[in-house]
Amino acid sequence: MGSMNLVDTCAANSAAIFRPAPPILRSAFVGAARLPPCPIRLKKTSIAHSGGVAAILTEEDVKLAAGKEGRREFDFGRYVAEKAEFVNGALDGAVVMRQPAVIHEAMRYSLLAGGKRIRPMLCIAACEIVGGDPSAAVPAACAAEMIHTMSLIHDDLPCMDNDDLRRGKPTSHKMFGENVAVLAGDSLLAFAFEFIATGTKDVAPERIIACVDELAKAVGGDGLVAGQVADIKLTGNNADVGLDMLEFIHIHKTAVLLEASVVMGAILGGGSPQQVDKLRIFAQKIGLLFQVVDDILDVTMSSEELGKTAGKDLATDKTTYPKLLGVEGAREFANKLCEEAKEQLAEFDSDKAAPLAALAEYIGRRQN
Amino acid sequence: MGSMNLVDTCAANSAAIFRPAPPILRSAFVGAARLPPCPIRLKKTSIAHSGGVAAILTEEDVKLAAGKEGRREFDFGRYVAEKAEFVNGALDGAVVMRQPAVIHEAMRYSLLAGGKRIRPMLCIAACEIVGGDPSAAVPAACAAEMIHTMSLIHDDLPCMDNDDLRRGKPTSHKMFGENVAVLAGDSLLAFAFEFIATGTKDVAPERIIACVDELAKAVGGDGLVAGQVADIKLTGNNADVGLDMLEFIHIHKTAVLLEASVVMGAILGGGSPQQVDKLRIFAQKIGLLFQVVDDILDVTMSSEELGKTAGKDLATDKTTYPKLLGVEGAREFANKLCEEAKEQLAEFDSDKAAPLAALAEYIGRRQN
Repeated sequence: MGSMNLVDTCAANSAAIFRPAPPILRSAFVGAARLPPCPIRLKKTSIAHSGGVAAILTEEDVKLAAGKEGRREFDFGRYVAEKAEFVNGALDGAVVMRQPAVIHEAMRYSLLAGGKRIRPMLCIAACEIVGGDPSAAVPAACAAEMIHTMSLIHDDLPCMDNDDLRRGKPTSHKMFGENVAVLAGDSLLAFAFEFIATGTKDVAPERIIACVDELAKAVGGDGLVAGQVADIKLTGNNADVGLDMLEFIHIHKTAVLLEASVVMGAILGGGSPQQVDKLRIFAQKIGLLFQVVDDILDVTMSSEELGKTAGKDLATDKTTYPKLLGVEGAREFANKLCEEAKEQLAEFDSDKAAPLAALAEYIGRRQN
Repeated sequence: MGSMNLVDTCAANSAAIFRPAPPILRSAFVGAARLPPCPIRLKKTSIAHSGGVAAILTEEDVKLAAGKEGRREFDFGRYVAEKAEFVNGALDGAVVMRQPAVIHEAMRYSLLAGGKRIRPMLCIAACEIVGGDPSAAVPAACAAEMIHTMSLIHDDLPCMDNDDLRRGKPTSHKMFGENVAVLAGDSLLAFAFEFIATGTKDVAPERIIACVDELAKAVGGDGLVAGQVADIKLTGNNADVGLDMLEFIHIHKTAVLLEASVVMGAILGGGSPQQVDKLRIFAQKIGLLFQVVDDILDVTMSSEELGKTAGKDLATDKTTYPKLLGVEGAREFANKLCEEAKEQLAEFDSDKAAPLAALAEYIGRRQN
């Protein structure tokens, strides 16, 4: 009865391999009680000003973001350094190495590749502008970066934009193969929601659910995916793309996730519906601004300066703002969007509004 | 100043294209108030017994699931028909056609391709066994099916298992191209969380958050993705795969999502922590059972009978239960798992437990 023994061995193995019920589930469904503390370690980092800035922004960036007058009291460089280091530490602690190693390595490779962390900063700054404790927004801030990273991994695939270089490093599929790159993106996408659900503390649960909804909407058929599919199907191959379609693509590929980042921060910080609405409009303006500036940089900067392939839009005959408006016209449009965004902040406390206003200016004037 | 006019046109266009704040966000962050009704239409369908069964199970399936004695009062065929039709209607109403058409068409193509809906049924039956209103579990039930569908779309890709046939139809990338298939999977993955967040009604919000966590864990580096990456890296190419690794793969590729389906249903139905724990063990047993039966069917049935490529495991020299235990040994193991699963239901009301018990038997005895 050799097979019976093996059957018993199978049963014993199964018992050993099945993971136990995670602690959250033992206590999360008991009614109105608060969720238990986040089981995911958010590694606190010390704030090292100069090192942090160097990793994220150039000195020129900091000067630009401080505004033309250069006399603003708010220290944007310090703010960015502090938040970026905290976010980087939180992301580092969120995705830990475990088996199967290759998938966690691939997730970490792209997630910790040194992006500017604009989405997390917007999320945290939006939490602060409505008077919230920024720690309430950290899991959502990290989740927005996870979604951003997964969209880059999948957009770079050979069957999509077929890019070899991202943030100055080989793209995920170049490092790990296409199959692992697809799966690393899937895993980051799902983990973003897990991280919000398990990591968000001291926030009314209805607000956490609203964030799950907001972030999910930014991904799917009304978000990033809609923008990417429109981009694939309608641009390139000299398709006659007008302004309406160009903006549909930009809004969906870029603006919706910036919008979700800001709106999640405002919701988690305890913002009123009116405040959330104002910040949503702010975010929509800077979302489009971000893409207009991207288009300008693509035709005015080198690949080395950008850390990704420059001139790609021209090479593929893509419709862009500089192509439609000329470079100067596109710059005028960018300035207009930046001013309109900042107008949405007029009714907030000016000290608390300073980080968001400076981030808007930085997005408008960035050089890479 | 032609460019100025274009700049103004851009601004006007942006205002028209930006989506307004969705209604849920205007009221969801006001504190302890309940979430507003689901904005996603769940299409109610009439219950047509025979038509429904025909679409989901063969007559033979129904006889088998009714147990060896064939005298059980619970009408499994009617139950399955009723739930499957309701779930199919809900899925049909969840993903509606809109722009960009191709992505929504691709999502619907795979989602409505006529799967057995085992995960949604387990979710609803688990809600009922703890005395919950089954409608509370419908969004989560649909979400589990969306996740299952996205995993099939991505697993079938040329860079993964490279399958041309799924549920008797061309796979997503064969129909829509690889790029749309990747994006359709991404979109379904995100939409699953949106659907739970916006669609779940009359349930304590902490329980909804616990479901988001449970479902997300079933996808990522501890779930489907972990199983798929282990499968890709370790099986095929005559790798020497032992029982431990085989079970790691099966548990992650199949069992964790069945587990999440059952556990979400139990949580949403108001189950106690002890009840949820018992049902989690039940689900782990039937999850492994499902895969053991899949392995047996791969070597004993034809492609036509299965609706997918049969004999693939043998052709690729994959380690399977029949290979390790022999076909009879694998059948014995399957019977043992089924009995152990049903033992977990002993303390529940027997009428309420009948659907889950019958589903376990069906999973153990299914022919495709």
